[in-house]
Amino acid sequence: MTIGIIYGISVGPGDSELITIKGLRIIQSVSVVAFPAGIGDKQGIAETIISPWLKPNQHKLALEFPYVRDETILKQAWLQAANQVLPYLQQGIDVAFACEGDISFYSTFTYLAQTLQQIYPQVKIEFIPGVSSPLAAASGLGLPLVTVGASLIVLPAIYNIKRLKATIEFADVVVLLKVNSVYHQVWEVLNDLGLLDSAYVIEKATLPDEVIYRGLRNLPNLKLSYFSLLIVTK
Amino acid sequence: MTIGIIYGISVGPGDSELITIKGLRIIQSVSVVAFPAGIGDKQGIAETIISPWLKPNQHKLALEFPYVRDETILKQAWLQAANQVLPYLQQGIDVAFACEGDISFYSTFTYLAQTLQQIYPQVKIEFIPGVSSPLAAASGLGLPLVTVGASLIVLPAIYNIKRLKATIEFADVVVLLKVNSVYHQVWEVLNDLGLLDSAYVIEKATLPDEVIYRGLRNLPNLKLSYFSLLIVTK
Repeated sequence: MTIGIIYGISVGPGDSELITIKGLRIIQSVSVVAFPAGIGDKQGIAETIISPWLKPNQHKLALEFPYVRDETILKQAWLQAANQVLPYLQQGIDVAFACEGDISFYSTFTYLAQTLQQIYPQVKIEFIPGVSSPLAAASGLGLPLVTVGASLIVLPAIYNIKRLKATIEFADVVVLLKVNSVYHQVWEVLNDLGLLDSAYVIEKATLPDEVIYRGLRNLPNLKLSYFSLLIVTK
Repeated sequence: MTIGIIYGISVGPGDSELITIKGLRIIQSVSVVAFPAGIGDKQGIAETIISPWLKPNQHKLALEFPYVRDETILKQAWLQAANQVLPYLQQGIDVAFACEGDISFYSTFTYLAQTLQQIYPQVKIEFIPGVSSPLAAASGLGLPLVTVGASLIVLPAIYNIKRLKATIEFADVVVLLKVNSVYHQVWEVLNDLGLLDSAYVIEKATLPDEVIYRGLRNLPNLKLSYFSLLIVTK
């Protein structure tokens, strides 16, 4: 029997229309659609994005990816998620896993795919790229993120604040993801470098409650949500 | 009278299905669709990507963006392109400008938009984000581009080869765009750093003639096309 394919589908930053034609075609063609479970009773972002596109007869599979750093807990969760998906694949049923942003860009799908490869080496995985949040944020600002000749650095949530100054000096454009927990320290670095006027914060890019801050001079203490990023240009 | 809107539409890396639902909806809703002209008689990439989606009654506007670095020639071309679009906007006709990859990521649209703002400050511009080539390339490789905690540097075509070593040492993942003209020098740097086995080259990502090189140890002298990029992971 032919085994099923697991598709990693990038569903984009938030606006349901920012999924690709290809991603949507595949999501609508499979009978099982998986996504990261939301927190508590709340729907997760990927599920919210794809909800308008799903048909009533599609089976929804919410997989738990805890928001912790403990490797043991994470690996257990990945294994459990992989074991929830596996029976479908073994029965020849395709599964689409929907992930916010892009599937190769700091995505949960990486760990699900790797775990599946470990427990079921013959697994067939396909990756469908999508719109990542920095590009969506730049479009929201109406600014180019990078132009000819400019270098770009993207730093994820967990980074060394001491190294930030050197990093900002190194590249022409810097994107800091999930900046909420370190915003004030970042603001101080930008203040020292005289870059507050060419820095921008975007919360929940492309979602109905998107908030944009253009220039941060008077905003040393922003309270931001988890889905916020900062762009610095020079 | 209401003036027309110019939409900058990201049409993705090459596969016509990697345009977003939103981008396609807007392209199909306007009567004038512009794009960068191809070279000679050849269709440009953006035009090729959107061709399957256009309706016979839509007016196609090929705008010249010469492949040169001379600022005077470039500015003249941008002004000419802006002046080709402007009459439609002034008559209240919306125009969609299709651009390969993402509209904020090293895109020609930046210069068209800036020139329009200079000659017609009341112009209304909307940016629609899309799939950029590094993410499409990562999906093609079936690899995550970046995972939790990893930093990413993107370097465009024009960069200092001497600085490359320091750059690669600085970040966890490095993407070099349009690597064709400097490939051999880059190969030597990667060889010095012992990174040839975790380096990848992707030509024409997601197009039918896509070529993928996984590991570059035995490939010191690749002949590459203009649309090729290199990913180095550590």
